[in-house]
Amino acid sequence: MSDDLLPPLPQSWQTTDILGLENLSLAEIRIWLDYAFRFKKLTNDCSKKVPILEGVTCTNLFFENSTRTRVSFSLAAKRLGAEVVEFSASSSSLSKGETFIDTAKTLEAMNVDTMVVRHQTPGTPQLLTEHIGCSIINAGDGPHEHPTQGMLDIMTICQHRTDIKGLTIALVGDIAHSRTARSNIWGLKKLGAHVVVCGPPTLVSRQWERHGIEVSYSLDDIVRRADVLNLLRIQFERQYTRPFPSVHEYALLYAMNRQRLEMAKKDILIMAPGPINRGVEITPEVADGPHSVILNQVTNGLAVRMAALWLVHQAAKRQT
Amino acid sequence: MSDDLLPPLPQSWQTTDILGLENLSLAEIRIWLDYAFRFKKLTNDCSKKVPILEGVTCTNLFFENSTRTRVSFSLAAKRLGAEVVEFSASSSSLSKGETFIDTAKTLEAMNVDTMVVRHQTPGTPQLLTEHIGCSIINAGDGPHEHPTQGMLDIMTICQHRTDIKGLTIALVGDIAHSRTARSNIWGLKKLGAHVVVCGPPTLVSRQWERHGIEVSYSLDDIVRRADVLNLLRIQFERQYTRPFPSVHEYALLYAMNRQRLEMAKKDILIMAPGPINRGVEITPEVADGPHSVILNQVTNGLAVRMAALWLVHQAAKRQT
Amino acid sequence: MSDDLLPPLPQSWQTTDILGLENLSLAEIRIWLDYAFRFKKLTNDCSKKVPILEGVTCTNLFFENSTRTRVSFSLAAKRLGAEVVEFSASSSSLSKGETFIDTAKTLEAMNVDTMVVRHQTPGTPQLLTEHIGCSIINAGDGPHEHPTQGMLDIMTICQHRTDIKGLTIALVGDIAHSRTARSNIWGLKKLGAHVVVCGPPTLVSRQWERHGIEVSYSLDDIVRRADVLNLLRIQFERQYTRPFPSVHEYALLYAMNRQRLEMAKKDILIMAPGPINRGVEITPEVADGPHSVILNQVTNGLAVRMAALWLVHQAAKRQT
Repeated sequence: MSDDLLPPLPQSWQTTDILGLENLSLAEIRIWLDYAFRFKKLTNDCSKKVPILEGVTCTNLFFENSTRTRVSFSLAAKRLGAEVVEFSASSSSLSKGETFIDTAKTLEAMNVDTMVVRHQTPGTPQLLTEHIGCSIINAGDGPHEHPTQGMLDIMTICQHRTDIKGLTIALVGDIAHSRTARSNIWGLKKLGAHVVVCGPPTLVSRQWERHGIEVSYSLDDIVRRADVLNLLRIQFERQYTRPFPSVHEYALLYAMNRQRLEMAKKDILIMAPGPINRGVEITPEVADGPHSVILNQVTNGLAVRMAALWLVHQAAKRQT
Repeated sequence: MSDDLLPPLPQSWQTTDILGLENLSLAEIRIWLDYAFRFKKLTNDCSKKVPILEGVTCTNLFFENSTRTRVSFSLAAKRLGAEVVEFSASSSSLSKGETFIDTAKTLEAMNVDTMVVRHQTPGTPQLLTEHIGCSIINAGDGPHEHPTQGMLDIMTICQHRTDIKGLTIALVGDIAHSRTARSNIWGLKKLGAHVVVCGPPTLVSRQWERHGIEVSYSLDDIVRRADVLNLLRIQFERQYTRPFPSVHEYALLYAMNRQRLEMAKKDILIMAPGPINRGVEITPEVADGPHSVILNQVTNGLAVRMAALWLVHQAAKRQT
Repeated sequence: MSDDLLPPLPQSWQTTDILGLENLSLAEIRIWLDYAFRFKKLTNDCSKKVPILEGVTCTNLFFENSTRTRVSFSLAAKRLGAEVVEFSASSSSLSKGETFIDTAKTLEAMNVDTMVVRHQTPGTPQLLTEHIGCSIINAGDGPHEHPTQGMLDIMTICQHRTDIKGLTIALVGDIAHSRTARSNIWGLKKLGAHVVVCGPPTLVSRQWERHGIEVSYSLDDIVRRADVLNLLRIQFERQYTRPFPSVHEYALLYAMNRQRLEMAKKDILIMAPGPINRGVEITPEVADGPHSVILNQVTNGLAVRMAALWLVHQAAKRQT
């Protein structure tokens, strides 16, 4: 059925796992993006069921809380006709002393095709690929990577601008603890953007300059030059020490509000990976204003995840 | 497909949300009831799958514990061929500081069609309709309303008596904290019943008399005159002070038991919204006896919820 | 549809519930085993969807943590096209004072066909059959029985040896608290195996000798004679007193390791019901070695559960 609806998988897509944007080639990123737009169109803006993965079983192996990512992967799979098995850490055999890898091997022995994995430890999805034959998709591994989030951010920019190349795109806030920042950085760099990381010095390392990234501590400076602002949530749950005196002080310096919007380019795009903390990194008038594409990002997330599930499935089929 | 199996949606059904029986018209209540009986027949007493909502996605947004309501809505949706996405408060982004409305907007951006909402705060489903485009069905908002429960109680009475009009129907117990009581009261009044609320003075307000409801503090008096008794659970989890000296004392005065059944009309119907507390509001011999229609109510709940999902979906389709 | 794919249900299969292997006849065990192998083949080693239970609704009523059993039953049901309703104790009305039986009756009134029940109390599934009309499958009741686990162990032995009869099969470890041990013992005895229970005296009762079971306290002795070793997990969560000085001491005497494997028959099968505790009852080199059929067991579990769901459904249909 997929033969008629979609072009065949290009030879330059080789991987059966999606672990991060850092280790995808530019060609692979372009292919994923292309299929995401195709799936968005094919499913009528991600609302219609197109059962081209019927008979496929996807597992959500989530070891951290999640609404949007888990539900988004589930819906993406179900709209392609796949079966979804939900697995969460709290109700599992891990509390009986089983290792993480044995849990995954057990699911594999039940003929699961794809494992979507979220874990607090960086590298966990990579580790799984060394032990598990079925496809692994990283849905966030600690502060390391969150490739489908990075890709849906990229897709949302592409939807509103024809080309990423040459755009100034700023990631603002808690860069230190953000897997979303890392996935954006690797993807956007490959696509030719000028990437800025901006936030308090305690949360933004100068080391990024070695990767060709601009480091800034002043949103007031950046906001005048940026084509896109991606406002990251302060990840209080990942911080061991307070990186700034108070939330009020953070908001004064780094919240995107009306005053700062007035200094910005007229066609600036305001993005946020969500969940947003209104009044911290973004004020309600900006979050709900005409520059905001936050809910666009959510819809595109479905398309990006449908494409991811389809791509790894096609690559796995080609290997057998 | 629905065109052949069911009559088209009448013009007098306008609403795309079901928030409570208080703001539904008599005509709308009659339509809902009519379709509930049609769905019950169509699905062979709610057991057969009739996939007339294929491609529709329903979300259960539950912020309070629930067995029967959540499972009943899920099964109703699945038996109509709809996709169901489960969402519970504990595993969600709400713990990361997201507002309730942003959570709902995120689900909406994933092209969910219907949100079934249970929340401890009265008015939450109403609030959602002001921000969310997809259909909202109230599955219980604090002590305010629980319209599908009210409707399934009404349907169960209609199943055993041809007309609600003129019947004496008593709601017994914790009226103060019961959304089931409120939904029953508004629905039954519109259908012409004589409604009595009965319980200890601390749980039954005299204010109900202003709405044409009889207030009684004596079950022994009411039981002789009632055609239907609906025995409400004492909602210990909603009470800040003890409304009566002891459970034993409550049961002495207000439990439906064999002695009281002997004083009742020969064809009295015994109902309870469940979960029941055996020995508190009802004794086992009454709960399991020939007058009890408690399990009938559960089955009718599926029909009422199938009808609700279908009605709001048809109304939404007509608007677009 | 099932008429073409599978032979009709034999007359000697009568039961509409599966409570344990102790009360199944030898003929019934053979029928179940036969259908499990048929389902394995029919579904291409348990991976393909064969929707012969479309329209059937299965509930998982789980009152204890579980990964493999819950997911395995869900996948078995879904691959046969059945609808699955998940129910877990923590989010249920039981916290509102409802009895276990009333919860089950409520689900029954929603026209659920099969209830898969796990509960910490022995006899709970049996109790349910006295009150509930739909089919009950025991998924583990305290230390009593876990018939689908027993059956998948038996199926795995049959897959590697043509006949169980005459084989020496040792269950090693925490016999006292193991429902898996009990289900294995009853099933294997009926099929003619020589069954040994082996472990520390605090966890292995001499009483088993009265049932024709060999009791041993020395794995070093047993390992030389056994055709199959089934290594049970120490169920720390069921023990009120420490049955041995330390985990280290236990592992010294009863862990299956390389040294003991060298003493064993060349074609010994190493089994474990999982979740395994690496380094306690089994070392990694044995768990992952060529004698291990642990992941085979998991795959066979799907086949055994598909067969169980189909058998009780066919038996129930014959009765009506």
